[in-house]
Amino acid sequence: MTDQTHASEEVQARVRAGEEVQARVRASFDKQGLMHTLGATLVAVSPGAVEIALVPGPAVSQQHGFVHAGAVSAIADSAAGYAALTLMPPGAGVLTAEFKINLMAPAAGARILARGRVIKAGRTLTLAQAEVFSQGSEGGERLIALLTATLMAVQGREGVGD
Amino acid sequence: MTDQTHASEEVQARVRAGEEVQARVRASFDKQGLMHTLGATLVAVSPGAVEIALVPGPAVSQQHGFVHAGAVSAIADSAAGYAALTLMPPGAGVLTAEFKINLMAPAAGARILARGRVIKAGRTLTLAQAEVFSQGSEGGERLIALLTATLMAVQGREGVGD
Amino acid sequence: MTDQTHASEEVQARVRAGEEVQARVRASFDKQGLMHTLGATLVAVSPGAVEIALVPGPAVSQQHGFVHAGAVSAIADSAAGYAALTLMPPGAGVLTAEFKINLMAPAAGARILARGRVIKAGRTLTLAQAEVFSQGSEGGERLIALLTATLMAVQGREGVGD
Amino acid sequence: MTDQTHASEEVQARVRAGEEVQARVRASFDKQGLMHTLGATLVAVSPGAVEIALVPGPAVSQQHGFVHAGAVSAIADSAAGYAALTLMPPGAGVLTAEFKINLMAPAAGARILARGRVIKAGRTLTLAQAEVFSQGSEGGERLIALLTATLMAVQGREGVGD
Repeated sequence: MTDQTHASEEVQARVRAGEEVQARVRASFDKQGLMHTLGATLVAVSPGAVEIALVPGPAVSQQHGFVHAGAVSAIADSAAGYAALTLMPPGAGVLTAEFKINLMAPAAGARILARGRVIKAGRTLTLAQAEVFSQGSEGGERLIALLTATLMAVQGREGVGD
Repeated sequence: MTDQTHASEEVQARVRAGEEVQARVRASFDKQGLMHTLGATLVAVSPGAVEIALVPGPAVSQQHGFVHAGAVSAIADSAAGYAALTLMPPGAGVLTAEFKINLMAPAAGARILARGRVIKAGRTLTLAQAEVFSQGSEGGERLIALLTATLMAVQGREGVGD
Repeated sequence: MTDQTHASEEVQARVRAGEEVQARVRASFDKQGLMHTLGATLVAVSPGAVEIALVPGPAVSQQHGFVHAGAVSAIADSAAGYAALTLMPPGAGVLTAEFKINLMAPAAGARILARGRVIKAGRTLTLAQAEVFSQGSEGGERLIALLTATLMAVQGREGVGD
Repeated sequence: MTDQTHASEEVQARVRAGEEVQARVRASFDKQGLMHTLGATLVAVSPGAVEIALVPGPAVSQQHGFVHAGAVSAIADSAAGYAALTLMPPGAGVLTAEFKINLMAPAAGARILARGRVIKAGRTLTLAQAEVFSQGSEGGERLIALLTATLMAVQGREGVGD
């Protein structure tokens, strides 16, 4: 067997792993009724990183017309939580133990994008963060919120998978 | 003027103040599109304290069927923020600068109730907290989440009132 | 055996339990070099609640002469952590997974007192909070900081007991 | 005047600005009695970024011999706060309004280093974060804690400068 075959097999294995992770997060995301209610969409999934987007509008607003801190938190929490799930063993479910979010600017624009990524994966607890950006319709984005979350891996609990 | 008249005038003044605070929060709450989308309701308003309720269901769920941490956060943030608003001067608007929420138990039950109250009111920054309870259909409740939030009073900014 | 004997035995059992909890926290506190360095003292211990005090002075100051947020956090974290430890099984050690502290007013006065108490005790994770007060030399106190912490019970790990 | 002269003047201006920022933070740091008590040292200062180090030992320990979460928090808070101060106008003082710290691993090693940097500088509130690393005696480091802090710029308050 040549080195090239070897490399090609490794690439294929990595592609398969990426596809499995995507399928796992996609299936779980589709069960989150709240994401559907908010009109949020799963934009990108890779091991340790997940992106979720939301379009501003009256359905997710607070009293001044900006996106409600709760809606910003919801997509940021899901992005951080699913980033954590991508690194958890099959069969484990993910629950949020706590999160903190700093809101630096009112959430407005053409699209709100939460980019979640794992900071430190552990057996029981995982620390993840999500940066939330306001994106303009002409391109360009700015950081409007920062969330850090502690996620717990739950195994063998009835009804808590993925 | 007798003492009794005096007392009665004080009581009336307090009642009027309570009614004004309720009207102010009610009008602002009705503009929060997200609360309407989630089916959340404003349950109680008094100076320094606000309660908001949510009924669990598929529209606000995460992947295991519990209420999503983002929906729990949304009503807890609104309850804490409006508790802060009740103590802010007329014309001031309230914005959330940051919050942290600890989620101690999965959110389920007949009703989720967030009880917000002000810990320390300041000129620029107010600290408020919200305790979130899961209530059973037969009565009884247990604490499932605790939020602490820093709220900012915003004055004279276009479009940011109440 | 009379009811009275029964009651008296129960009281004695509770007293013994209280003494054991105090001895456990006292022994652990005495091993915290930082508390000794800061001049902090263990004021009160009961099941689910612990108080720690600190005297303001140049050794614990920040640049304006107030007590440094780090010193306030240190006694608040220890008070919350030991409150959690009082409800953990014998042999378990306690580690802080995360905490958040809101500082509402500069820390000054005759004494700074952190009152820690458990909000929700769990098998793996415990949520505790600490209220920090500034006390005057003539009596009277005001709330200057609020901490919420997630504490983890660690069992069977070399060197991590109490 | 040639382009080269111009470039050289710009470089000199930047160097002067860097030196002023360093002198401002150094002077304030030297007034923090707690940093002296902990044996913490100011390692690096540049606009928007500050590093502070601490050597583990009995004087800063918790009960298992690791560095106490309060001591880790103290250097992380100072690093984040001073990073914020470097971007504040002359005469403004900096106060911590709140911070949250996640502790991912016990703090041990040859040196603990907190790297603070500004995420978003604002007129009243600045968001900064500090990553805390455990460094080995042979080189190599790992992330053990992550702090996010809201810093407030205070102007014209007696006794609160830098």
